[in-house]
Formats: sequence, structure tokens, C-alpha cells
Amino acid sequence: MPDTPVPPSVIIDTSHSPYARLRPVPTTAVRLTDTFWAPRRQVNRQVTLPSQYRLCEETGRMDNFRIAAGKKAGAFQGRFFNDSDVYKWLEAAAWSLATDPDPELDTLVDWVIAEVGDAQQPDGYLDTYFMGERAAQRWTNYDLHEGYCAGHLFQAAVAHVRATGKTGLLDIATRLADHMARRFGPASEGKQEGADGHPEVELALVELYRVTGQRRYLDLAQFFVDVRGYGKLGRPYDRWSSEYHQDHRPVRALTSVDGHAVRALYLNSGVTDLLLETGEAALGTALDRVWDHFTQRQMYVSGGAGSRYEGEAMGREYELPNARAYTETCAAIASVMWNWRMLAHHADARYADLLEWTLYNAVLPGVALDGQTYFYQNPLADDGTHRRRPWFGTACCPPNIARTLAMLPGYFASVSDAGLWVHLYAANQTEATLPDGRVVRLTQATEYPWSGEIEMIVDGQGEFSLFLRVPGWCEAGTALAVNGEAWSGALTPGSYAEVRRAWTPGDRVHLSLPMVPRRLEAHPYVEEDAGRVALTRGPLLYCIEQADNPGLDPRDVILPADAPITAACDASRLQGVTVLRVAARRVPPGEGWAGRLYRATSSHKSTSQGEPMEVVAIPYYAWANREPGRMQVWLRQMR
Amino acid sequence: MPDTPVPPSVIIDTSHSPYARLRPVPTTAVRLTDTFWAPRRQVNRQVTLPSQYRLCEETGRMDNFRIAAGKKAGAFQGRFFNDSDVYKWLEAAAWSLATDPDPELDTLVDWVIAEVGDAQQPDGYLDTYFMGERAAQRWTNYDLHEGYCAGHLFQAAVAHVRATGKTGLLDIATRLADHMARRFGPASEGKQEGADGHPEVELALVELYRVTGQRRYLDLAQFFVDVRGYGKLGRPYDRWSSEYHQDHRPVRALTSVDGHAVRALYLNSGVTDLLLETGEAALGTALDRVWDHFTQRQMYVSGGAGSRYEGEAMGREYELPNARAYTETCAAIASVMWNWRMLAHHADARYADLLEWTLYNAVLPGVALDGQTYFYQNPLADDGTHRRRPWFGTACCPPNIARTLAMLPGYFASVSDAGLWVHLYAANQTEATLPDGRVVRLTQATEYPWSGEIEMIVDGQGEFSLFLRVPGWCEAGTALAVNGEAWSGALTPGSYAEVRRAWTPGDRVHLSLPMVPRRLEAHPYVEEDAGRVALTRGPLLYCIEQADNPGLDPRDVILPADAPITAACDASRLQGVTVLRVAARRVPPGEGWAGRLYRATSSHKSTSQGEPMEVVAIPYYAWANREPGRMQVWLRQMR
Repeated sequence: MPDTPVPPSVIIDTSHSPYARLRPVPTTAVRLTDTFWAPRRQVNRQVTLPSQYRLCEETGRMDNFRIAAGKKAGAFQGRFFNDSDVYKWLEAAAWSLATDPDPELDTLVDWVIAEVGDAQQPDGYLDTYFMGERAAQRWTNYDLHEGYCAGHLFQAAVAHVRATGKTGLLDIATRLADHMARRFGPASEGKQEGADGHPEVELALVELYRVTGQRRYLDLAQFFVDVRGYGKLGRPYDRWSSEYHQDHRPVRALTSVDGHAVRALYLNSGVTDLLLETGEAALGTALDRVWDHFTQRQMYVSGGAGSRYEGEAMGREYELPNARAYTETCAAIASVMWNWRMLAHHADARYADLLEWTLYNAVLPGVALDGQTYFYQNPLADDGTHRRRPWFGTACCPPNIARTLAMLPGYFASVSDAGLWVHLYAANQTEATLPDGRVVRLTQATEYPWSGEIEMIVDGQGEFSLFLRVPGWCEAGTALAVNGEAWSGALTPGSYAEVRRAWTPGDRVHLSLPMVPRRLEAHPYVEEDAGRVALTRGPLLYCIEQADNPGLDPRDVILPADAPITAACDASRLQGVTVLRVAARRVPPGEGWAGRLYRATSSHKSTSQGEPMEVVAIPYYAWANREPGRMQVWLRQMR
Repeated sequence: MPDTPVPPSVIIDTSHSPYARLRPVPTTAVRLTDTFWAPRRQVNRQVTLPSQYRLCEETGRMDNFRIAAGKKAGAFQGRFFNDSDVYKWLEAAAWSLATDPDPELDTLVDWVIAEVGDAQQPDGYLDTYFMGERAAQRWTNYDLHEGYCAGHLFQAAVAHVRATGKTGLLDIATRLADHMARRFGPASEGKQEGADGHPEVELALVELYRVTGQRRYLDLAQFFVDVRGYGKLGRPYDRWSSEYHQDHRPVRALTSVDGHAVRALYLNSGVTDLLLETGEAALGTALDRVWDHFTQRQMYVSGGAGSRYEGEAMGREYELPNARAYTETCAAIASVMWNWRMLAHHADARYADLLEWTLYNAVLPGVALDGQTYFYQNPLADDGTHRRRPWFGTACCPPNIARTLAMLPGYFASVSDAGLWVHLYAANQTEATLPDGRVVRLTQATEYPWSGEIEMIVDGQGEFSLFLRVPGWCEAGTALAVNGEAWSGALTPGSYAEVRRAWTPGDRVHLSLPMVPRRLEAHPYVEEDAGRVALTRGPLLYCIEQADNPGLDPRDVILPADAPITAACDASRLQGVTVLRVAARRVPPGEGWAGRLYRATSSHKSTSQGEPMEVVAIPYYAWANREPGRMQVWLRQMR
């Protein structure tokens, strides 16, 4: 349990988790100096956080607390889960205060916390939807997100105490958690057997346990995990199946990510948190099995999750429609959260690979370059009608993006007894403390994600390992040099290169991760991607957007299998991106298709190779930031 | 207006419609003697109708009428639109009585009509959901199907009077229609401006006009069509957009089939009925435009409609997922209804082509061979989990199939001043009366749809034309002979061959429509079908089902472009079908895909041509009648 009066600002505190191979590095220990993430995090602080707070006020989300506290007249406004948006905003603000102190924001946060606290009931209950005449319905309908909102309160509280040392929000959180612990548990203890239909509180309770040392929070998380799959959550609404509520199967028997994508992935995160504390083999086996199924059968090439609009649900295996991809931004964030916990448990680079890929290609598309409009769904093809919006009635995604960007430095590195683990690359200065107390300073100089050349200066004393992630996308040419000399160890894509030596301050390590443009193809059972390729370079997925290719319908682009693809830095485009220029061909459907949707293969022989043309592809995260037009990730490949 | 006291049993009475080119032939005039439809219609009478009536009793659908009449205590059971299932059953029974008199069924129908009549209110209102405390909510929520239920009552009444000459149900219907006509209309007349969110009553009102001659029913249909698209239907539930309610755009401005598929296609049917009576050019232009868009951008290869589970909706152009096809059976029936009306208006074979194709390949799959289990959705690929069920909470499809089979003979032929039009082929004896009063008897001898050889004996006097549909799927070899001599006129696929001559009783006409197995490909913008072909023969779409191909995963089947396909009659399979035997190859994904969902094209070169194997394809309508297994319509074609 924490020894220091002010806990360090780690995003997930596995410092004392018995089944964690990796321990966290505080967000404050990684100072980003790069041109990719640092400007985005600045926009997050200066544009996103203020605008989201304003929207929480304008939409009545803050007033709901005032009304619940009896300080203001009126009725609850909006959706029943709207408290959670305020909590996610608080969490985002807290992480931001950790790395970028801001007295004005600090004051605002304290004031919002006071507003939240005023709404708490004497027995610890806190959910502004269940006030007044709805008070009698508390904890009776597991689809009304009371536990979900509680979980986001707990996460905010944990973030705030770690970031600022202030315990006000934590006190509110523990009062509610104690209320829940008194109410929920085994029937044999005279308690209520149930759990929220929208998982979230499980992972938050484990973190509450980590920050307070109170075992009952871990036990409650365990209960909420174990109670699922036995029909105890009821079906208050019959619109959705038990999969929607994550109640269709006991957690240990899961084989895939089922039902509502965000719920499932939040649950997986919470279960992994439990695993980190308890080491229960059955949980580990289930999580490994589900992760394999997800990444091998259910995941979009962007890293996104969720194939169906109906029920915001995962699809069956290989069900991956492009224009109708649901791929909720929150589901991508949930996948990042889950992979981070799996990484702490396994110390296997595949989780860091997917975390990075998902951040760039499934989370980041959720917010515009201007930091104030958002995607809820992230399709992989569009006709120009899907546009980001400033807010939503169900506004889960915007503050979820804000907190993810605010906590981002926490994902860059870990430590273990053996040394320092570098997961993400970007120009930054990291100062990490190894478990034995030695301080290691690592400075990264790189243009990553535009270039894979990474120059590192290591300031550390004595022998320890530097674990450098060699991404799974690396092909030939990966190289590593220490003080100018080629390193002889293994550089296997999809693993960490362990550079172990007795270090001297100022040692230089150079990592070369050649960013060759690649064509990905999808498994032949994925109907929607058949005969198509997706372009990638380094950690980025690319797409074709009409804004870069005037007059071109991306559906008419065909790539010869040997089409040269060249990467070119374009500082003026989309705040500076590396584009891919492809020697493609434009092959419109042709006269034979006029007025037809189907035709006999015998009736026409297509011999047209089309007209050659250069097509410009941009990183997928940057689409829909200009005038509306068609966009497409998967491009037809010439037969 | 009808001159005869007992109206003829025509299914849609365009006999007097000023803008109909074709006039109907009564269902009683076509006596099916074939081995395809006749046995199905027998099952419909002997199994389907009795079992559906039993289910209407067991599920409280009949009791709802008794409760509304005050004859029984209790509360309304089931969905708010459940009356419509009783009405559709009544319509099915009525059409059945027309062609196949059955005193027992006749008595039951009269009794059910009496039960319905007892529930009618003094003011003519009739909807058993809006009784008791809900009476105050009548006509206040356009999403609660009051007009939809009324429409099905009207259709049943029209069918019953035409089939039996009895006017009891028609009296009930006109009382309700008069009630509606008093209530709904322009605000300038002090009436309520609105329409049902689920179109259906429009087409029924036009038929009510045709059977009664009362202009006010046509006017009300016109009003319900004209009022749409101006936001007057409200949004009582915010789950769906205005497209769902068919209120997003004025009818004359429609460009595609939008929103809820069944609602849209029922509306199109009603609008076409209006057009047949009024000839309004703007309606005709809109319908032609929408039909083109539907068939060229939105329609499944089966003829099915509806690409999305959410909102049971049409997709955007070229959005045609296979396993997640919604393709509600009712939508296919609605398309048949619409095409029949378009055919009457234009006398263009393309509507009859699509009507036939949709009957075989999108309506018929909706019912099992045993006539008592049904599909609501009709996917074009499945993993073996989608199975027919005996009934549904929303049970619109089962009685819709029953009435379609019961009225089927009515779709076979039409007359015009020029002569007799033959739309559908199957062994039958047709006795049609030309507008000038001459009677023509036509006997078809054929094994259609298994064979395209059709021998006809024409018993008629004097000069008139025999219009024989040459289906659009015909390729080379189509031939026609009259009394053994080759006919020299035009035989253009997708048109009617007009054989005009002075006929002598006993004249023989032989039509040869060669049924060559065909491969269809889809427009290149249809992602889900890229690189694939669908097999067809004659009017039938084929699929591969595991039951015929033990151990084979249809996803692994690849057809060489020149793979021989042979048709073979198999009397023992699926009550007798012609199967297609294809010299295909089995190409499993291969080792290179183990544990992967995506891979770089550079990492593996697939050179495997797989193992040759014979694959058996069955007509798509017959799938899911044996043990569960994978099914697939679109098959990969070898590059």
C-alpha cells in the first residue's frame, strides 16, 4: 500500500500488485517534448477541457448535482448516466493538473468536487438521477448505470488524489464505495446479489483498493465479477440480450468479446485488474483466450472494436463492415485500458503493440484536430456524411478522450526489477525510479511516428536492462546501436529488445525502426475486405480521402500489387503529416454496370486497367478534418 | 365500379383503374396443377392456416377482440399491433376459400369475423389495444399502428367479399374507414393532419374504394400520402429517425427506398395504387426513380430488401451485408405487392421479372417446407445458428406468407384489350375473360421452375395477342413455336413476346427458356460481394449448404472462372429439387493465417489452388430445412 502521504501520479498503480511483472512510472516522470503528442495534449488542456466543462454546465450535467443537493430547484436533466461525464471530466482535469499545474483549473476542480460532495446522501449514496421520487428505485434496475457512474467517480477520485494529494474526492468516493460494499455481496451475508449491467466499477474498485489499501474494495470488485453469468442481473429492458449486460456467461467461461463492446472491454479491464491482485489462473486463462479471439477474429484493422450499431455490439467472428463499423471511440479507449493491464501482467510486447496501434488509429480519430468535435462511431469508409460533432446526448466519448490524452505520459514506460521498459516512442525526457531506488533518466530524440529513427541518451548508474519495444510492424532493417556500435542482441519484431549492460551517464542508444509503407490484407473470411489492402506505415493506418484527391471516388482506386508507394513529409497538410503517394489506377465501374446491380459474368469481360494516377493517402486519424468527402481505408487491389 | 353483386376474386382490382394497362384475372381462373406451387398451397391450407389460427388463439390475439367486446375479462395481451395478424390470417383464409372452398374454414372465418365485429365501437373505431384506459390515447401516437391495423382489416374485408360475396367484414371495414375519414384530413376542414407511421392503410383504402366505389376512401388514401414529409407525424419515440416513419421527405421528392423497409415498400405500393387511379405524373416519376434506385443500388441478389437490423432499415447504396442481411420476409412480400402494381401500370416485363424472382428467392425462404416454421430475417450467409421459428412476438411475417401463397394464382396472368398476358409459368389451366367478353383457355404443361420448356394449349377464338414473358435471365437459345413452327417475332429477354394471330381452339404454343446455370457478380461498389459470384438457374438463386457437402466450410469454396456447372434433378432431396454440381476447389485459409486477422501482403504468397472437389448447390429457398450448418450464397471466384 502507498507509503507516501502524497501518492505518485501513476495511472494504474501496479506497484504492489503481486501478479504484475511491470510497475508503473508516474505521468509526471515523462515530459513530452515532441511535435505529435505534446501539441495535442496542449489543445486538450487549453481547448478540450474548458469547452467540455462549459458543455457540462450548459447541458445541466452540473445542475443535476446542485438539484440533488437541494441547492437549486428543478428536475434531473438528460440521460440517467450523465453524472459519469462530470466524473470523467474531473479525472481528465486531475491528470492534467499532475503534468501541467494550472491554479485556475485546480480551483475549478476543487469547486466541482465540492458540488459533487454536496449531492452525496448521508448514507454515502450518490447518483443524481435517483433523487426525489426515484430514490425508491435505487439499485433496483441494473441497466441504469448506478455502478457505472460510481466507477467513474472512483477513477476520478483516484486520479485526483494521485495527482494533487488532495483527499476530498477520495473521501466522497470511499463513502459511496462503503455504501455499495454494505449493500452488495453474497446472499449468504444478507446482501443483494447483482452488478451493474455496464461494467466499469470493477476496475475502479481495484484502483480504490490500491490507493486506500482497503481490502473490502477488492472483495467487492471480485463479487461484481463473479456474480455475472447466472441471470442475476435481470432483464429490465427486453431490447437487448443478456450479452448486452455482460450477464450471458460466467467470466471464467468467456471465449470472445461479446455483446456491447465498451461494456465487455471495461469488464475485461476490471477482470485483469483482479488478476493482477489475485493471480487466479482461471481468470488469466479466460483473458488470454478472449484476447486471442478478439485480435484474431473480431478487431478492426484500426484496432477499433464493435461491428454493429444495434446494441453497440461486437460482431460474430470476421464480421467487420467498414462504412457501418460502430467502433465506438470509448471501445477503443477501453481496449487501451485492457491492453495496458495485460501488458503489466505479461510484460509481452504484443499488448504494447496493440495499445500503441489503438491509440493512434482508433482513439485519436475520435477527436478533431481542433480538439472540440468528436466521433462516437469511427467508420473505416464513409460517403462524406459522417462528421464529428461538438457533443452528444450520450456524451461518453468526449471526456473519455480528454482523460486518455491527459494520462498519456503514463503509458510510455514501466519499470521492473530488471530495469526500464520503453513502450512508446516520441521525443521526451523520462525520469524513472527503478525498484531498487536508482534513478534512470532517458531522453528520446525522434520524429516518431513520422520516422523510426530514435536516438536515446541514457543517464543511469550500474547494471540494468533497457527494454526497448520493437514493434510488430517492423520488417527488415531494424537495427540498434549502443554508443555507435551495433548491438548484437535479438531484435525480434513484436518483442522487447533487452539491452542489458553497466550503464554510464550519457550512454547513447540508437534504435532504427524502418518505416516501410506496408499493405495489409485481411483474413479471407472477412467478406468486406476481400481483394483489398489497407496501407500502413510505422504505427499509422492510412486512408484515402477526397480532400487530397479532388474528383476521385476512392471506390474507383485500384492498386496494382507492385504499385510503388512513397512516403513524403507534408508540413502544411493537417498540421503536418507524412502522406503516402501511391502509383494507383482509377478504374470506374464502366459502361457494363450502367443501370445494373448484378450481372452475369458471361455478359461482360472487364479488361480495363483504368488510367494511372497518383493517389495521396493520409493517416486515418486525421480524416474528416476538412471539407466532407468520401473516405476509404481498404483499397481494391488489382487482380 | 363493380357491376356484379358478387365481385370477382381478383387480388388487386385494376379492372376500372384509368391508369392501369393490365386488368386482373381472378384467382379462381388459374387452377394450378404443378408440382411446385400446388403442393405448397396445399400445405398452406392444411398446415399453415390451421396452425396460425391456433397460435392466434394461444397468444391471446383472438382474446384481445373478446376482451375489447366486453365478452371476456382481462387485459390486452402482446404487441400493440397484434390485431393485424388476425386480419392477415382472415385475408389468407379468404383467398384460400376462393380457390379451394372449405365449409369448415368458411364457418371459422365467419365466426372470427363476428368476433372482430363485436369489438367495434359504436363510432366505428376498432383497435383492441386502445380500449379501456387507453381509449383516450386513440389517434394520438402515429407509431402505434392504428392505421396499419385498419389497413389489414380493409384488405381482409376486400378479400373476403371478393372471395365469398359476403359483406359482413366489409361492413366492419367501411365503418372504421368512415370513422377515419371523418377524423383525418386537411386542417382547413377542421380535421386532424397526420398519418400512420407504418404505411399500409393507403393501399388498402384504394382497394376499399375499388370494391365500394366510395370516392372518400380514395381521397383519404391521397391525404395519407400527401401529408407525409412535413414533420406532422411527430416523433413519439426518439429511437428512430423520421425515415423510420416515412415522414422524412414528401412522397413526390423521394429518390430511394428509405428507412424501415416494409413501411417504405408498403407506402410505395399504396402510392402506385393511387397512381393507377389518378395518373398523377409527379407520383409516376417519383415511383420510377425510386424503383430504379432500389433495383440498382439497394436490392439483394435474392430480391430481398433491408440491409440493417437497426430500424429494420434499408441501407445506403451498395450496403448489402450477407450474414447480417435483414431482408425481412414482409419486405419481400411488400416488394411483390409493389411490383405487381407497377406491372399493372407499365405492362413492362421487368416488374414481372422481379415479382417472380422475389417470390422464389425472397418470399419463399421465409417459410419451411413443412409450412409451420418461419424466417423473419433471411440472411444470405449463415453459420448455422439462424433457424426458422414457429411464431414471433412480432408475428407479421407468418400470416403475410400465408396470404401471399393463398392469392398466388392471381399473380399468374392479366388481360388487356390486346389479349392475354402470361406472367408466371407453372403447370396450370387458366380461363380468362378478355375485355371484349371472349373467353380464353390456356393450359400450361411444364416442369417450371426446374425446366424452361413450356407447352401451352390455347383455346380461344379469333384474333388476339398472347403476351408471353421472356424472363430477363434468358440467354441464348430462347425459342418459341406455334403449332410446331418456329415463331419469327422478337424474343427479347426481359420483355413480353407478343404472339398475335387468329387463334383456333387447340393451338399449341411451345416456349423454350433454356435454363443455363449462371454466375452473377455484383457491382464493384458492393464490398461484401467483391470477388464472388452467386449461382442461379432459371428463376432460382442457389446457395451452398453444409448438409449437402459434409465437412465442407462454404467459406473455403473457390470457383475457377471456367468451372463446369451441371444441373441435376434430385427427386429425393428437399421434396425434389434440381441441384447444381460445381467443379470447385476447396482452399482453406492456410497456415499463413494461423493466429492472424491481418497480415502484410509481403509476408506470404498464397500459391495454393486447393483440392478439387464437387460442390452441391441447392435452391436458396430450401435452405435451413435440415440439420444446422453453414450456408452461403456468394461464393469466392478464383482470381
